[in-house]
Amino acid sequence: MSTEPATAVDADVLMSLSGLELLRLGLTDAPRPPSIGQLLGMRLADVEYGSVTFELTTQPLFSNPLGTVHGGIAATMLDSAMGCAVHTTLEAGAWYATLELKVNYIKAASVQGQTLIATGQTIHVGRSTATAEGRVVDSEGNLIAHGTTTCLIRR
Amino acid sequence: MSTEPATAVDADVLMSLSGLELLRLGLTDAPRPPSIGQLLGMRLADVEYGSVTFELTTQPLFSNPLGTVHGGIAATMLDSAMGCAVHTTLEAGAWYATLELKVNYIKAASVQGQTLIATGQTIHVGRSTATAEGRVVDSEGNLIAHGTTTCLIRR
Amino acid sequence: MSTEPATAVDADVLMSLSGLELLRLGLTDAPRPPSIGQLLGMRLADVEYGSVTFELTTQPLFSNPLGTVHGGIAATMLDSAMGCAVHTTLEAGAWYATLELKVNYIKAASVQGQTLIATGQTIHVGRSTATAEGRVVDSEGNLIAHGTTTCLIRR
Amino acid sequence: MSTEPATAVDADVLMSLSGLELLRLGLTDAPRPPSIGQLLGMRLADVEYGSVTFELTTQPLFSNPLGTVHGGIAATMLDSAMGCAVHTTLEAGAWYATLELKVNYIKAASVQGQTLIATGQTIHVGRSTATAEGRVVDSEGNLIAHGTTTCLIRR
Repeated sequence: MSTEPATAVDADVLMSLSGLELLRLGLTDAPRPPSIGQLLGMRLADVEYGSVTFELTTQPLFSNPLGTVHGGIAATMLDSAMGCAVHTTLEAGAWYATLELKVNYIKAASVQGQTLIATGQTIHVGRSTATAEGRVVDSEGNLIAHGTTTCLIRR
Repeated sequence: MSTEPATAVDADVLMSLSGLELLRLGLTDAPRPPSIGQLLGMRLADVEYGSVTFELTTQPLFSNPLGTVHGGIAATMLDSAMGCAVHTTLEAGAWYATLELKVNYIKAASVQGQTLIATGQTIHVGRSTATAEGRVVDSEGNLIAHGTTTCLIRR
Repeated sequence: MSTEPATAVDADVLMSLSGLELLRLGLTDAPRPPSIGQLLGMRLADVEYGSVTFELTTQPLFSNPLGTVHGGIAATMLDSAMGCAVHTTLEAGAWYATLELKVNYIKAASVQGQTLIATGQTIHVGRSTATAEGRVVDSEGNLIAHGTTTCLIRR
Repeated sequence: MSTEPATAVDADVLMSLSGLELLRLGLTDAPRPPSIGQLLGMRLADVEYGSVTFELTTQPLFSNPLGTVHGGIAATMLDSAMGCAVHTTLEAGAWYATLELKVNYIKAASVQGQTLIATGQTIHVGRSTATAEGRVVDSEGNLIAHGTTTCLIRR
């Protein structure tokens, strides 16, 4: 696999987009540079103002030593979903950084092709910081994990 | 790649090992079933009673949308290092589950072949719960992230 | 002030009550032993299955060095509201212990007689652990803080 | 009790002090405005660059419904100790706000006049954020609770 970034959209154009517009590009088929989304098969499923959903399908390469899905997978999904939820609220040119992430693990997930769905939602977006919460469920709606995050915002 | 588990050690033998003995098997070349360690190239670097270190080398497939290492990578390393640190203290037949994980992100890491080193250490191991803390540094010792975890123990 | 516990209800009776019944006693005028509720003037405002609300009125003795309400006050309210929310779901004889608490601080609160209202709600109650979330708002509905908790359950 | 602030030091003087100098004033007998320190009998025991220790003596008014020290007490002590540890590193005119606090509870503490000692230490102090960790022990050195915090810094 090539790791050459495929720049689909001009950088100046990207800078002129709000967070919501930028993330909605992610719902299209535009080529993208390599990312953890490719590594995990994690795909953007929904983008609203203040709420973002990612999905993936589990595989044996997600295993922890017990043979269930490693906690890092839910942490990665929640970090993406909650951070992007914050991002949807930002105007063009603003950016955010995740300061901290907390994840509660509720139920082990199978590595045999199970769909996991992570939704993040903002709780508070202020001038210089934001917080969000998120949940990971399987395709039957069972709660796998939930979390919260704190982000720093630069405007 | 085959996802057929390569059972290197008999299950009865595994059950007779303490957590420390079991984790030290991970330092050998014994074949292992597919795992997140393979997916990320994450390798066990050191195992002591109450302390475990994992390492990996970053790659472009670890990228977040900003082009630096996604927060899920440090979360995965910390979850492994802190959970395994708790595991080293358990007698044969006992097991643990991670109840929650908190990660603070300090510095962005490059996706261009940087070595990341995560060390977890137990803070408290009781009869039914344990806590641990961990840090992720790069090869120059810069702090990338730190975290804490709470585990449930079954004896 | 006497620190002699004023036992309003016989211990055998208490042991026969579910968590919900026990907490609802807290809504009555029954005398109670000294507690942090007395110290802070924190009063139980609502008890439902899986959800508990506490209120208090701020005072200058709640000040941090900046002259606003110290973060410990919201932490105390959230610990009470979320822990009690878990408690309402437990059968007679079962008990819980808080393993960890995380609080996000959103807005400073005034120490000049402001009403603070903390509501905790369970997210997941399993056989041996439970999680809950909570929010603290002022009398105008402004979000002051929010949090999550992990509890250990003994049945 | 009067809630009239007793201003011991001129405000202009205060503004000219570094965080370390300001906190060391707290070790003197200078009169102070009402604060949560007075409410809980919490006293500053040590102030170093990057590390601050508070102590208090437990009392029945710190009780939770189980009759042990309420989790809010350790949370309050940790919030103070960790936040002040960050403060000691700040130059005159800079200030900080606590964004989040996480506390792990290890051991119940008695409400019968037990000494609790909370020490906070910075982990990382950057330009706009800082993190710290802390521990609460009793007079025999038993670990009661530990925690971490994230602070926002304004320079």
